[in-house]
Amino acid sequence: MSKLSAIRSTKADSIATASLSVETSGEGFFEITPEVTRFLKQSGARDGAVLIYLRHTSASLVIQENADPDVRTDLVTALGRLAPANAGWVHDVEGPDDMPAHVKSMLNGVSLQVPVRNGGLALGTWQGIYVAEHRSTPHRREVLLQFCGSCAGSDKAND
Amino acid sequence: MSKLSAIRSTKADSIATASLSVETSGEGFFEITPEVTRFLKQSGARDGAVLIYLRHTSASLVIQENADPDVRTDLVTALGRLAPANAGWVHDVEGPDDMPAHVKSMLNGVSLQVPVRNGGLALGTWQGIYVAEHRSTPHRREVLLQFCGSCAGSDKAND
Amino acid sequence: MSKLSAIRSTKADSIATASLSVETSGEGFFEITPEVTRFLKQSGARDGAVLIYLRHTSASLVIQENADPDVRTDLVTALGRLAPANAGWVHDVEGPDDMPAHVKSMLNGVSLQVPVRNGGLALGTWQGIYVAEHRSTPHRREVLLQFCGSCAGSDKAND
Repeated sequence: MSKLSAIRSTKADSIATASLSVETSGEGFFEITPEVTRFLKQSGARDGAVLIYLRHTSASLVIQENADPDVRTDLVTALGRLAPANAGWVHDVEGPDDMPAHVKSMLNGVSLQVPVRNGGLALGTWQGIYVAEHRSTPHRREVLLQFCGSCAGSDKAND
Repeated sequence: MSKLSAIRSTKADSIATASLSVETSGEGFFEITPEVTRFLKQSGARDGAVLIYLRHTSASLVIQENADPDVRTDLVTALGRLAPANAGWVHDVEGPDDMPAHVKSMLNGVSLQVPVRNGGLALGTWQGIYVAEHRSTPHRREVLLQFCGSCAGSDKAND
Repeated sequence: MSKLSAIRSTKADSIATASLSVETSGEGFFEITPEVTRFLKQSGARDGAVLIYLRHTSASLVIQENADPDVRTDLVTALGRLAPANAGWVHDVEGPDDMPAHVKSMLNGVSLQVPVRNGGLALGTWQGIYVAEHRSTPHRREVLLQFCGSCAGSDKAND
């Protein structure tokens, strides 16, 4: 059984873009939810969606539980089982953690969209947005943020 | 060899959003294609794209074959092999199916976009849109639907 | 530590859509980055995002390393380990490579968005966009491309 709510419609003709630089400390999950929220606030975003895009091939973007940190520990374990080091990879010039990192990046993906309502992320109660670092050493990762929808400034422009 | 078709351009400045509540009966795939189609019709959508977003961390969204139900049975089997229960997870307070559900949700993802043409989903012939429930007991899942593009009402607004 | 850049805002009210036909030669990765770039150029795209959508259930879309071809070889190997042929699948009428292809398509996904800046794809240095063919025989695959944002022609329309 499924139930559809009432539909809310708006005029939307604004795009705001910024780049977010994230420094990771090696393999693990690094939350960027507060930074995305800050970007939306600074953009004057109201209703629409935000595209989150990671410009790398050995890290990924994940929306997952933000409560018990054990979940993230287990997610790292799970990915390590799916793409183990020293598994006879052809591409191994950059170290034993490199090819597994590419596999994990492919499985999780580097492109996400989250709806925005009244200027805030419409995440579920337990959802956080994470950059998942799959290399064992610290890296600087670039995330592009792009809001598409209605902005606080849009109306004025149309007046 | 690849071939690019002619390009079709439109003015698009409308966003319509709604929430879809889906009741699952436990682990498995639950099709929401008809509900998304209904949302597009009620929104007056014409050309653009629809964002489908699941607000949970132990279920996921999947576009897969809508013909032979055996495919969905095998997909559940495949996910169970990739993230088995009782595999030494640290996070196990919510039961043996909980951490595997988080892993499956991470791998499949919770955010999808599908192009919309003439008000209808531009899915392939064999594609259906599914909420994949990864917990063993029934759950109520919330899906956000957001159309961005041109609407039947848009032209009037521009007249 | 993370750092947010200055925000760049534009008016965006154009949508351009086209279909790309890709002929694969069997299992492997087939790059479509040049075709997507060509589509953006022909559309007069400036700032926004491009949605890339694959209308199939036994192939997928992947953004991955475009330098060392060994990476793609290893990605095919990795997917073969995650979803092996002859693993007791119920759905096997279309051959031993069919059900594994559905599993790989589910894990990688068929829907991607990439930001567009000044008319070009804002990919990372080492990122290429690929159709991943998971069937062993050649197939013709259809990819829908949809740019949403500001176009070279938009301003004139607003003059």
